[in-house]
Amino acid sequence: MSKKIEIIHPSGEKKSYPWGISGSRLAQTLGHGHAKKVLALSIDDHIQELYQPIVRSGRIQFFTFEDEIGKKIFWHSSAHLLAEALKALFPRCQLGIGPPIRSGFYYDVDFGKIDFDASHLPLVEKKMIELAREKNPFFRMNVSRKAAEAFFKKNINPYKLEILSGLDQESITFYRHGDHFVDLCKGHHIPHTGLIKAIKLTGISGAYFKGDQKRNQLTRIYGVSFPKVSLLEEHLEKVKAAEARDHRKIGQALGLFTFSQEVGIGLPLWLPKGAFIREKLIAFMRKKQVDRGYKSVSTPHIGGKALYVRSGHYQKYKNDTFQPIQTPHEGEEFLLKPMNCPHHCAIFSATPKSYKNLPIRLAEFGTVYRYEQHGELHGLTRTRGFTQDDAHIFCRPDQVAQEVGDVLDLVLEVFKAFDFSAYRVQLSLRSEEKKEQYIGSQEAWERAETALKEIVANRPFQTTIAKGEAAFYGPKIDFIVEDALGRAWQMGTVQIDYQLPERFNLTYSGKENQKERPVMIHRAPFGSLERFIAILIEHTEGKFPLWLAPTQIRLLPISSRHIETAKIWEKKLKQANIRAEIDERNEKINRKIRDAEAEKIPYMGIIGDKESEKGTLALRKQSKGNQGEFSAVELIERLVEEIEK
Amino acid sequence: MSKKIEIIHPSGEKKSYPWGISGSRLAQTLGHGHAKKVLALSIDDHIQELYQPIVRSGRIQFFTFEDEIGKKIFWHSSAHLLAEALKALFPRCQLGIGPPIRSGFYYDVDFGKIDFDASHLPLVEKKMIELAREKNPFFRMNVSRKAAEAFFKKNINPYKLEILSGLDQESITFYRHGDHFVDLCKGHHIPHTGLIKAIKLTGISGAYFKGDQKRNQLTRIYGVSFPKVSLLEEHLEKVKAAEARDHRKIGQALGLFTFSQEVGIGLPLWLPKGAFIREKLIAFMRKKQVDRGYKSVSTPHIGGKALYVRSGHYQKYKNDTFQPIQTPHEGEEFLLKPMNCPHHCAIFSATPKSYKNLPIRLAEFGTVYRYEQHGELHGLTRTRGFTQDDAHIFCRPDQVAQEVGDVLDLVLEVFKAFDFSAYRVQLSLRSEEKKEQYIGSQEAWERAETALKEIVANRPFQTTIAKGEAAFYGPKIDFIVEDALGRAWQMGTVQIDYQLPERFNLTYSGKENQKERPVMIHRAPFGSLERFIAILIEHTEGKFPLWLAPTQIRLLPISSRHIETAKIWEKKLKQANIRAEIDERNEKINRKIRDAEAEKIPYMGIIGDKESEKGTLALRKQSKGNQGEFSAVELIERLVEEIEK
Repeated sequence: MSKKIEIIHPSGEKKSYPWGISGSRLAQTLGHGHAKKVLALSIDDHIQELYQPIVRSGRIQFFTFEDEIGKKIFWHSSAHLLAEALKALFPRCQLGIGPPIRSGFYYDVDFGKIDFDASHLPLVEKKMIELAREKNPFFRMNVSRKAAEAFFKKNINPYKLEILSGLDQESITFYRHGDHFVDLCKGHHIPHTGLIKAIKLTGISGAYFKGDQKRNQLTRIYGVSFPKVSLLEEHLEKVKAAEARDHRKIGQALGLFTFSQEVGIGLPLWLPKGAFIREKLIAFMRKKQVDRGYKSVSTPHIGGKALYVRSGHYQKYKNDTFQPIQTPHEGEEFLLKPMNCPHHCAIFSATPKSYKNLPIRLAEFGTVYRYEQHGELHGLTRTRGFTQDDAHIFCRPDQVAQEVGDVLDLVLEVFKAFDFSAYRVQLSLRSEEKKEQYIGSQEAWERAETALKEIVANRPFQTTIAKGEAAFYGPKIDFIVEDALGRAWQMGTVQIDYQLPERFNLTYSGKENQKERPVMIHRAPFGSLERFIAILIEHTEGKFPLWLAPTQIRLLPISSRHIETAKIWEKKLKQANIRAEIDERNEKINRKIRDAEAEKIPYMGIIGDKESEKGTLALRKQSKGNQGEFSAVELIERLVEEIEK
Repeated sequence: MSKKIEIIHPSGEKKSYPWGISGSRLAQTLGHGHAKKVLALSIDDHIQELYQPIVRSGRIQFFTFEDEIGKKIFWHSSAHLLAEALKALFPRCQLGIGPPIRSGFYYDVDFGKIDFDASHLPLVEKKMIELAREKNPFFRMNVSRKAAEAFFKKNINPYKLEILSGLDQESITFYRHGDHFVDLCKGHHIPHTGLIKAIKLTGISGAYFKGDQKRNQLTRIYGVSFPKVSLLEEHLEKVKAAEARDHRKIGQALGLFTFSQEVGIGLPLWLPKGAFIREKLIAFMRKKQVDRGYKSVSTPHIGGKALYVRSGHYQKYKNDTFQPIQTPHEGEEFLLKPMNCPHHCAIFSATPKSYKNLPIRLAEFGTVYRYEQHGELHGLTRTRGFTQDDAHIFCRPDQVAQEVGDVLDLVLEVFKAFDFSAYRVQLSLRSEEKKEQYIGSQEAWERAETALKEIVANRPFQTTIAKGEAAFYGPKIDFIVEDALGRAWQMGTVQIDYQLPERFNLTYSGKENQKERPVMIHRAPFGSLERFIAILIEHTEGKFPLWLAPTQIRLLPISSRHIETAKIWEKKLKQANIRAEIDERNEKINRKIRDAEAEKIPYMGIIGDKESEKGTLALRKQSKGNQGEFSAVELIERLVEEIEK
């Protein structure tokens, strides 16, 4: 009798197959339509190529271009194809690294004396397509370190030799495709290059090998590729549309925020209009929180180093962050706060608590600072300083489910208020392997993970599980929203934490006066104000809902003799708490309308001779045109109604 | 004809006197009543003792115990008297330093093997009174450094020798009083010890010589003294009353704020009730500012070091402050912001400005961090982190007077709203001597100082001039309010600045499109929220005005069967935006009333059988007792009226 393996399919169905069946054979048993799309597979989270034999039983997953891992593999193979094309066109160029990224791939190349620029990209693209059509299969090879070194010495590549010297295993993996191209690579790859049907090299930039600015600069070539030409076309259109929605562009055009090299990169400066929106969002959230029994607190932006040693933040972040602040007093050291939780623990501890006092919900719009690498910074979505709509709920174990549930309701309510319908919910658990990254006991983690699983199971949304994405002190539920470019950003979050209450020795007295340990829930429905505003800008193209718009209506006098009338209107509107302003410039009315449209002012009120006489104005709505004539009473009624909705 | 000197009296009257007339003789020409009180005098700001001959013409000032300088001299002489008494009682003790302080004086003493404690203080007090009655006159002596050294070597005093070695002049001044006591001292002193009629040694503590914690500890003896016994009695009563008003004590009792050793000394943590008051004050000021055309901005709590090198803050504060924050990126350095101005300059620069746009008023409730020595910290009045109600007005030179005037109006309006009537106004100018402390040109300083002098001249308040108290970039008008102990604290401030606009190269385009330099006005009516709240607590004893009180009314059900009725009341009151809460504890009504009184809750609403039936409650006002029966409509009307007022 031949040897068998037991495979559990994603459907849960269990089947047995001959030992050593290839991935592609197994995929074919699913039917031709599906099999054609499969790029790679995994057995119990161990990824392997399709051509390789399957020699273990376990849970199988198939990856296609439609999922994250499949895309990564596809783009990784595309980076190899790019390298092959470059070596074919410029045999003396030296290759650095070539990974897949969020949206495509890149390769860092040392062109030596060749003056490579963007004008060469079409040539490279053409070569890639030509090579792809050869349908060269990818193969994995294990070689000894010695053989690997000999290979790169012969092919004169100091970069790969340096990468090699940084690897600590003796058996090195290479991938080959076709006859001419071999690369040091840990994998994984698609079956063959022929699957890459559409390629766009999107740009070049300078890059330092290993980010080391003391070395000479390499040329980074960015690209994106697809298994169908139509997908590339869709992508390019999406990029074009996204560029028009880019919050960095709109933010500058509307005067919402700015950055200053001197203040520091990644540290937003909120201009008056942006600061207004920030304050409105804070007021919006504060109101919701007061209604739900949250109490505001306020804490400093620094804390003694000992505080973060105790919380575990220091050990977790110490080398890769803003360094401690010394003072003239010997031994005194502070850290910029990366999180508000240790401060809130200090507040919880300040006065004795009884079981009757719980839950206690401490809220703070707390600005925190985290060091992000220069290359990681991106407008308002990734900054070095940001304000969380943070709160910590200290509760009894029997209150956890209720409190987490209430927080989920709040997040959903907020998303609805801003029309964020395209979110997904992710349950972030520990990584099974790297358990040393986390603090706290196995039992506490089990308890917290089980609690969250139960809570999301009863909710009207689909949840995906992400292992390895938990906070270092506990599992969490994250709400993930895409920006205009389709990149996913974590927004709202709810986290259960049994660890910090231990570390800070937080207690309350129980019914029998015994000391009990509270559970801590970390939560932030917006996540960060900076990121939330960025996404809001991209979703609305800067056309904020009326209640949030810094200027709600701009009054446009047709000529200077109508300014006085406009001032009377302005006063009336302000009395009704409507934010009105007058365009007093000596410009033609069409120019005034065009400028107000460009500035995304929700309403315009045009005042000329006729209107002055009748005591009305001609109302225009942003991008919707003329709305007819309105008296003050009618106008205020309409605007107030829209604001309150 | 004998030589004459010309003396200008404080009244402005000019008189001539014989050259070499003694201070006391000259004082006697003013009349006996006044002369008796005079402790010292100055000619053109050069202080001298009364017995000394006056040998120069100039403007004279007489100092009595009623003014700051007179008090300092009186207490300085009292410190000498304390030292004399100690040497008489404990001949082997070694003296450190003995200065006057804000309220009294101290002397640091090394008692060697003697176990000196507070129980010895009455003995020392008695000895001081005994010695004072000898009416020993104080005399100033100039001796050579050599003679001074010889003196302290003979008298075995290593501390004085060390002080001596730190002085860089060759002629050293000593003061002698009576036959037995001589001390190294730069002066000045009262005519004789007999003027010290009442003495209280108030306590002892440990102190390090020159603040150096590596050396052995000295004993610091604190005292206070007066020219009349009744003044001491008054003082002791004031201290007792002040202790009851101490914001640190009330702040803790009412749960407004706390400090944590682990977060860091001098860094307040605002508990829910305190954070509520902070937010209310911010909303109060924000409303006033919006009405006056200010625009909110928001900036990070750190900035690149280069920013502060440019502004001059770095040079000014570099050694005595929080040290720069490094990052993993070489050469990247940030500072915790000590002021918001450089950030606001960056915002002004972000977009081009024309003369028509000015004035631009950028406001931020900005939290800043300044390193204060451990010993300088005091509750909320002196902290290491505080939030300024900061704003910077960028205006044309012709708008300065109007803008500064508007700010003064705002400050006065704020002080009135909080019943701060006992303030004084100080015009802080450059020091005439240490001009190198300041940045900017002579002309700019002249212009700014003249402008402020003119502005305050037309105001309905008295202004005192304080030379040497200007900010390093410009002169300022400070509003100074006393705390419960009579200590003066700077609160509101308005500052004119021609320097930072230069340093940050701020410009606007003028009428002919030429580049012009704006003037910057720095202003903060509260000063800092922390200090303002501290003073407010001390002035009100924690009985905040109704609109500011975290809880406005507490409902007190007489027994548990009245809780349901109380909940209906709570709901009604909340709908009317009144902050109500219920005391649901199972306690006697008298206990509930007592606790609400202690927590300074402005109103209490008692609900029993009678009230439940009639739909009323029995209203009590904090510290005013019963106010009669109220229906919901009546109660809401009364409270809303008081809140709006």
